[in-house]
Amino acid sequence: MDLGDVSTANCPIGRTLDLIGAPWTLLVLREAFTGARRFSEFQRGLGVSRALLSQRLDLLVECGIFERRAYQEPGQRSRTEYRLTQKGRDLYPVLAALRAWGEQYTLDDDGPPLIIRHKGCGGAVHTRLTCERGHQPGVTELIAEPGPGARPQWGRRGAPPTYPDREPTAR
Amino acid sequence: MDLGDVSTANCPIGRTLDLIGAPWTLLVLREAFTGARRFSEFQRGLGVSRALLSQRLDLLVECGIFERRAYQEPGQRSRTEYRLTQKGRDLYPVLAALRAWGEQYTLDDDGPPLIIRHKGCGGAVHTRLTCERGHQPGVTELIAEPGPGARPQWGRRGAPPTYPDREPTAR
Repeated sequence: MDLGDVSTANCPIGRTLDLIGAPWTLLVLREAFTGARRFSEFQRGLGVSRALLSQRLDLLVECGIFERRAYQEPGQRSRTEYRLTQKGRDLYPVLAALRAWGEQYTLDDDGPPLIIRHKGCGGAVHTRLTCERGHQPGVTELIAEPGPGARPQWGRRGAPPTYPDREPTAR
Repeated sequence: MDLGDVSTANCPIGRTLDLIGAPWTLLVLREAFTGARRFSEFQRGLGVSRALLSQRLDLLVECGIFERRAYQEPGQRSRTEYRLTQKGRDLYPVLAALRAWGEQYTLDDDGPPLIIRHKGCGGAVHTRLTCERGHQPGVTELIAEPGPGARPQWGRRGAPPTYPDREPTAR
């Protein structure tokens, strides 16, 4: 199957963005990775409306990226914390890759506001593309091939489309 | 400075999302990394409206992620291709990290639709967190500290906010 004919219907990038691609969601995750747990902490870190934050957190709980836990301070009523699950912690490389690009292309002269280090040795942490034989290829040294889940979407590229123009839909 | 007091105003993640965080933009980049260059190729790959795609491509050109190049087929009028710049190609790790998470958590039973390999050796490519001493720490082995660009945003976390609630704004 030609690469341009592989359907994007089961594309893992598209499906991931269906879950975390809404505006603010990645910033909610950023706050969680820098220690936010309580609704008020997310809200102060983001300056976002309660309604929007609540909607984003609900969705992230629903898809298993956060879990709710009750906490109670002395003399106060019980409240809810939002804790990253393993599935949520596994999103860290997405944030790290966004950070790396941002540090290369968007920083002001005073440098990065945060540095992320490996606790064990103190070394600064970066993301690297690594192949299973240990090489670190650049993006021009990569090649894509249809995988076992490749499904045909004939006419996706190069031939006239066989479906009418559509409005954007999640895919 | 306490980590919770570091301003997010110059956060490289936030700034990167200001450029590429709008709905569809990361999918436009995905199409470019799998070979789309022409407007019609992006449109077929995404099934998105012309107006929205045009707006996204304009923005990506404006911020230097794509460049426009003229091409002309025999007997046809001159048309425009959209080619990733180096700045655009450097976004590949973001896509790779989204793909990796999506492959772990969103695939159907038939597996990934695409496999990305290192051309040189054929090994499948993944993203890894790597520290400058060559370790590959997990996310729980990381620690963040204020960097040279850390700016105070007192009351950002833990104390009452010093600014009125705001509607979401890009930051």
